[in-house]
Amino acid sequence: MELLEKKISECGKIFPGDVLKVDGFVNHLIDTDLMCEVGKEFYRLFAGEGVTKILTIEASGIGIACLAARYFHVPVLFAKKSKSSNMAKDSYVTKVASYTHDQVYDVVVSKEYLSPDDKVLVIDDFLAKGNALNGLIDLVSQAGAKLVGCGIVIEKAYQDGGKLLREKGIRVESLARVASMSVEDGIKFCI
Amino acid sequence: MELLEKKISECGKIFPGDVLKVDGFVNHLIDTDLMCEVGKEFYRLFAGEGVTKILTIEASGIGIACLAARYFHVPVLFAKKSKSSNMAKDSYVTKVASYTHDQVYDVVVSKEYLSPDDKVLVIDDFLAKGNALNGLIDLVSQAGAKLVGCGIVIEKAYQDGGKLLREKGIRVESLARVASMSVEDGIKFCI
Repeated sequence: MELLEKKISECGKIFPGDVLKVDGFVNHLIDTDLMCEVGKEFYRLFAGEGVTKILTIEASGIGIACLAARYFHVPVLFAKKSKSSNMAKDSYVTKVASYTHDQVYDVVVSKEYLSPDDKVLVIDDFLAKGNALNGLIDLVSQAGAKLVGCGIVIEKAYQDGGKLLREKGIRVESLARVASMSVEDGIKFCI
Repeated sequence: MELLEKKISECGKIFPGDVLKVDGFVNHLIDTDLMCEVGKEFYRLFAGEGVTKILTIEASGIGIACLAARYFHVPVLFAKKSKSSNMAKDSYVTKVASYTHDQVYDVVVSKEYLSPDDKVLVIDDFLAKGNALNGLIDLVSQAGAKLVGCGIVIEKAYQDGGKLLREKGIRVESLARVASMSVEDGIKFCI
C-alpha cells in the first residue's frame, strides 16, 4: 500500500535492536485518516469472506481494528493482556511473549464473545516473529471459530513469522512489507 | 443519547461493588456501529471548537476515540499506562489510581505529540470519580495545550467526578448519565 509505505519512509524511525518506531502515526499518536485508508484496504481484501468479527490485541491494535470494522460493520473483540489470568474459567487463554517488553503475558478473551459461528479476521499493527498473531490464532482455534485470515499493517518480512503462518495455509495480508532496514540504508520494502 | 441508554439498559450488567459491566459493547467486544454513533454525537457537540487532537487512555478509550476522530479528521493520542515510567525525560507523566485494578499507574504521553498549539478533546468510556479523566487533563495542562472539553460514554452521575470537573468550569459531555443502579431496581438514567 503505497500511501502507507510513503508514510513509513517519511516518519518511521529506526533504532538499534531492530526497532521500527512508528508511534507518530500508528501506535501512540494515531493518524486516523491514514488508518481509515488501511481499514478500507483490509475491507477490499477480505470483503467477500463473510467476516463476522474482528479480533485484535490491546492496545495498539484496537484503533486500527475499529477503523476497519466500520467498513465491515462487525464488532471488534480485543484480547486483553494479563500477567496472571484470574478469568480462566470463562475465558480462552493463551500465552504470548512480548519482544518489546521482554515478558510473557496471558492473553485472554471472554468465551461469551467468540463462538464456532464466528468467521474471524485478525488485525494487528505489527508482524515480526508472529508471537502475538499466533496467540490470537490460538484463541480463534480454542473457540472453534473459523479464521478468515490476518490483516497486518507492517510486516518485518525478513523475520519468519509471516512465512511460517503462510506455510500453514493461513492467509496473511500485510499492507507494508519491510524487506530490510538499517540506520545507514533506511527502510526497504518488498516489491 | 437514547440509543446508548437503550443498549445499556438491555445489555449492561450490574455486579456487586458498583460495577456496571458493558464489555459486550464498549470495552471488550466493541459494537463499532454504536460507537460510530457515539463518535458522531461527540462531533455534533464539539464540532465548533477547533479540536486538533483527541486524547484518550489505553485500552478501552482507544476504539471510541478513533471512531470519533473520523468525524473530526484529527489524530488520536492515547496515553499509556506504565507501572514505572522510564520515559520521563521525553514524556509528560501523571499518576492515576485505578478503581478496577486497585493500583496506581504512571500515565504517560510523549512530549512530541502534545503541544501548546493543540486544542484537545479528551474522550473516555467511563467517568465515576474522575481519576483517569483528571490524569488526562493534567497531561493537557502540562503540555500547555488548550482543553476543549471531555466526551464521556457513560457517567456514573451519582459519583462526584463529573460534578467536580464541571464546577471547575470544564465542559464535560456524557452521553449516558446513570442516576442510580442496583441489582434490584436496574439502571436509572438522569433526565
